[in-house]
Amino acid sequence: MKRLSVIKIGGNVIDNSEKLHQFLLDFKALPGDKILIHGGGKIATELGVSLGVEAKMVDGRRITDIETLRIVTMVYAGLINKNMVAQLQAKGCNAIGLTGADGNIIKAVKRPVKDIDYGFVGDLDEASVSSATLDSLLSAGLTPVLCAITHDGESQLLNTNADTIASAVAVAMSSLYETVLVYCFEKRGVMRDIEDDNSLVPEIRMQEFEGLKQEGVVSGGMIPKLHNAFEAIKSGVSAVYIGKADELPQINEQGFGTRLII
Amino acid sequence: MKRLSVIKIGGNVIDNSEKLHQFLLDFKALPGDKILIHGGGKIATELGVSLGVEAKMVDGRRITDIETLRIVTMVYAGLINKNMVAQLQAKGCNAIGLTGADGNIIKAVKRPVKDIDYGFVGDLDEASVSSATLDSLLSAGLTPVLCAITHDGESQLLNTNADTIASAVAVAMSSLYETVLVYCFEKRGVMRDIEDDNSLVPEIRMQEFEGLKQEGVVSGGMIPKLHNAFEAIKSGVSAVYIGKADELPQINEQGFGTRLII
Repeated sequence: MKRLSVIKIGGNVIDNSEKLHQFLLDFKALPGDKILIHGGGKIATELGVSLGVEAKMVDGRRITDIETLRIVTMVYAGLINKNMVAQLQAKGCNAIGLTGADGNIIKAVKRPVKDIDYGFVGDLDEASVSSATLDSLLSAGLTPVLCAITHDGESQLLNTNADTIASAVAVAMSSLYETVLVYCFEKRGVMRDIEDDNSLVPEIRMQEFEGLKQEGVVSGGMIPKLHNAFEAIKSGVSAVYIGKADELPQINEQGFGTRLII
Repeated sequence: MKRLSVIKIGGNVIDNSEKLHQFLLDFKALPGDKILIHGGGKIATELGVSLGVEAKMVDGRRITDIETLRIVTMVYAGLINKNMVAQLQAKGCNAIGLTGADGNIIKAVKRPVKDIDYGFVGDLDEASVSSATLDSLLSAGLTPVLCAITHDGESQLLNTNADTIASAVAVAMSSLYETVLVYCFEKRGVMRDIEDDNSLVPEIRMQEFEGLKQEGVVSGGMIPKLHNAFEAIKSGVSAVYIGKADELPQINEQGFGTRLII
């Protein structure tokens, strides 16, 4: 089985042009097939401010109204995605930038209105992903770069969580590839002591997860992150890594972040 | 040899949502492989006004400074391209929206500065087009939708004339496909009498072009348009059509616009 790396980067890399340049070099250097998934960053918020479109929040949750959808479509699918693709091309990586609408790669469902109307937000799972189309792009020597915009198959674009896209893509592709999923974020991974930068937990097995929660090593926002990661592993992904973007080259020596396995 | 239609639409279709909806239905219904190329429309100008970025003109020519490039990248590659792709998907056409940077499909050259510095504008010809990559997308059942943004291969995105892209793509693809090139614009085609809507010239052969220029049937902006069309035909394109978007379905009965042939 061929190997595939599905790598997700967030705003902290995208908003820093030097970090982004180095990350894209490191991404390009990874062996095997790969797919990059990126979130938004501050640019969409700044454009919203420039255009007088205020961020709408309900109960602390961000709402994607039609104006916000226009902005994220322009910024994620246009400005960020295409500049990232042009930079990857310059580095010798044959990138192709896509939303979920392109090639019908990810067909999501507009989030049903219950207590809160989130607006044009898409929910999805691995069944939403067209693994055959992604496979045909990879087989043509292309490297898909996906932004966090999907569609509903009925003309509507939808704003979608990039972490969820990464996990759904990795699970869907694991029927065709031996797939690893890599989340790059601000920290080095799961830390035994958040004050001590040398206390990285290099590996967590699924059966250890409950114990680490009880010990408090895994807490707060890390709990749902790891929960989702283990769900992906249960569904076929070989391993999930959580670590810092600038340590990505160490992934080949198992020295990158926290590795989650079955 | 397989048949391919390369179709270019401009702002008059893009700016009108009803016209665009009907055009995309008609485009989807065309038999054979096809590629859509779209220009910009008024949205980029309007966004520029909202953001306080003035259109920069030198000697009546529009200049693409870095702010303008950001805007056209967001509007052409993001807003317009992705909404068009989502609409085509809803109509059952497996569209994939691309800039020239994606898959390195069109590598242009930043226009050299002579009397005027046009800024981030790309020049290109058929050698700039990766026909192999477009062919592999078509062979995977995808319909490329190209916007007028290209790249220089060194990380720089470039604003590029959509008519030129259409012609370069059609010429490059004519080595692999029997290719027709269709320009949709405001008029029904070349008219014998611009006052008379029934005076359409249905066909012009290359050898007739000079005579029609001398008669004044072809004049003004139509001269370079037809000149470029005949250049494309000389370089391998089977036929070029110039006509009105809403008459596109009549192309199968040779009743669409003015047909230019060798």
